[in-house]
Amino acid sequence: MKRNLLLTPGPTHVPPQLCAVLGKPIIHHRTPQFQAYLKEAMEGLQFILQTKAEVYLMAASGTGAMEASVSSLLSEGDHVITVESGKFGERWTNLCKAFKAVPTVISIEWGKTVTAADVEKALKADPSIKAVYVTLCETSTGSAPDLKSIGAVVKKSNAVLVVDAVSGLAVVDLKMDEWGIDVVASGSHKGFMLPPGLAFVAVSEKAKKLMETSTAPKFYFDLRKYAKVASKPDTPFTPAIGIVIALTESIRMIKEVGLEKLFAHFTRLANGVRAGAKGLGLELYTHESALSNVLTAIKVPDGIDGGKIVKIMRDTYGISVAGGQGDVKGKIIRIAHMGALDEYDILTGLSCLEKVLKELGYKFELGSGVAAAQKYFNQTA
Amino acid sequence: MKRNLLLTPGPTHVPPQLCAVLGKPIIHHRTPQFQAYLKEAMEGLQFILQTKAEVYLMAASGTGAMEASVSSLLSEGDHVITVESGKFGERWTNLCKAFKAVPTVISIEWGKTVTAADVEKALKADPSIKAVYVTLCETSTGSAPDLKSIGAVVKKSNAVLVVDAVSGLAVVDLKMDEWGIDVVASGSHKGFMLPPGLAFVAVSEKAKKLMETSTAPKFYFDLRKYAKVASKPDTPFTPAIGIVIALTESIRMIKEVGLEKLFAHFTRLANGVRAGAKGLGLELYTHESALSNVLTAIKVPDGIDGGKIVKIMRDTYGISVAGGQGDVKGKIIRIAHMGALDEYDILTGLSCLEKVLKELGYKFELGSGVAAAQKYFNQTA
Repeated sequence: MKRNLLLTPGPTHVPPQLCAVLGKPIIHHRTPQFQAYLKEAMEGLQFILQTKAEVYLMAASGTGAMEASVSSLLSEGDHVITVESGKFGERWTNLCKAFKAVPTVISIEWGKTVTAADVEKALKADPSIKAVYVTLCETSTGSAPDLKSIGAVVKKSNAVLVVDAVSGLAVVDLKMDEWGIDVVASGSHKGFMLPPGLAFVAVSEKAKKLMETSTAPKFYFDLRKYAKVASKPDTPFTPAIGIVIALTESIRMIKEVGLEKLFAHFTRLANGVRAGAKGLGLELYTHESALSNVLTAIKVPDGIDGGKIVKIMRDTYGISVAGGQGDVKGKIIRIAHMGALDEYDILTGLSCLEKVLKELGYKFELGSGVAAAQKYFNQTA
Repeated sequence: MKRNLLLTPGPTHVPPQLCAVLGKPIIHHRTPQFQAYLKEAMEGLQFILQTKAEVYLMAASGTGAMEASVSSLLSEGDHVITVESGKFGERWTNLCKAFKAVPTVISIEWGKTVTAADVEKALKADPSIKAVYVTLCETSTGSAPDLKSIGAVVKKSNAVLVVDAVSGLAVVDLKMDEWGIDVVASGSHKGFMLPPGLAFVAVSEKAKKLMETSTAPKFYFDLRKYAKVASKPDTPFTPAIGIVIALTESIRMIKEVGLEKLFAHFTRLANGVRAGAKGLGLELYTHESALSNVLTAIKVPDGIDGGKIVKIMRDTYGISVAGGQGDVKGKIIRIAHMGALDEYDILTGLSCLEKVLKELGYKFELGSGVAAAQKYFNQTA
């Protein structure tokens, strides 16, 4: 039987405990029985987000939550800031344009990340900015901004700070209230170890004021509809019942570990992957100052096609990693370390990478990547 | 252990065969492995819809598919016709207004349904009509229009015919191509016996032309994005992987029965429920000429609260039916007969209804509803 190991940045591996819940018969959603699950899911997400803000759940993939964070806050002609340091930052720009907002785009070289100073400068240049759209982990490059310092800057302005945390929530820290983040958009299929299909948006009081005046056309993603029934708790449209129920179990598993230990675990896995890459003589793609602990982007050796590495690892050996997108297509591979993974999964992934690199003619000592990662893992708890 | 029987109009009962598939580990969606499932799901839906039209799949509940059928076809100021004969018809109107189209509303008394003549009259009154929005089964009242004759009328005009088939697809016949239906919006959690979270839209060539000129703001539900990658096959955003895979199994189960036998099965269940209601001395809410085979709406006896019936059946005995909405809240109950149900499920539901009616003081001979349904079932294959 071929292994099915997902080291991909979403969907992530669904552990057997959650598969079992997903395989249970479902119940009707307009019942006290389901309301108990919905309440637990909403409160659980508040725990992960470290916030008192309401969290709205909808059947959609992560982009649905991002759209809700645009169409529910903005009106035609509104000025906003978007940060483009990869594919997912570009999505914020495209979403804002689709709903006829006017973005000032902070364009960052791929592999690097935006700073609080960049955001402050853009905010000062246009005091009419209504919202700043950033990304917790830019999955296409493995970069992450310092949201705490960006939050401190945006908090002083009239704008709200909106974070795409589809990739990285429940993997790295995100203190919504303390850092001054107004809106977080995320989904079920990354840090929460569940299939895609459930999205959610948390909204601060400051952002709720924008919701009240927003006139962009919307219906399914109209967060006012969600806010109206959230306290029951209920959802305006049929929720992804099965995944909501499984989310309560996922959050119970996360709580059992505790947030601090959880984030330390993924930092350790990230460092292990980086040690492994170094052991193989490979360079990281992402700039040292911008490294995210959600996934690691590694440059492939000259003359080898990264797409081929991904294809052989997956189709021949059953181990999925991601390739590069856009300009770095074929030039990088991306190994995600989020969800239900441990150090042995990382060693498995590195070992398979070594096997395929050998097949493709890269010169190195077999075992050197795995050994380097092992050494790192054995030095840390 | 309490029974968990869903005789509700969505979600419906998920049979163990499909629970088992939903409990399997998931795979990544940008892989040949998933593409094979996606292709099978798309072709399977074409089989159910009896169409050559492309079918686009998205992570959303049914309303998402409805929104896609509005925002992807229309532009601000476009004239459309909507039919309101219950809650779900009203949703078409609200969706069209949200995206700044101008609906001519054909208002029908609840429990009755629109006719081809009504639609023809409205089309003749305004030749600029771009689209006609109707409902396969108006779930709030148990009514169904004759889509074949409506299709014949709309086909002769410049307008496209759009059907909300969330409730009723794979339960009653819908010959998309033969009847001249241009767009069908539906979802996973009714006739397909799956959890909610997967929506889909089928689009004819006539409707695709509208898609090309539509300027309503949209992004996640922009069907042009889906059309662009459908032939790969791929989806523009992360699909509801788990439910797509389970859908292929659901469609295999349906194909094994065959469409003709499947529709006859639900007609028989519908007639059984009606016979049971009559046996209890209860009247149907829906007008004789408008009866849908998807669900049956029954008037509750004078002096008894329909809401109480629903609550006791569900919370005390584990059998879920639906109550009335809007003006008929407390005055009707709705028993759905779609998905993985057989005559014994119907008898179970009727038996529980009898038990609760007795508790609430309705005078009748215990067993008379079940016996009447049994007699009907025993007379038919």
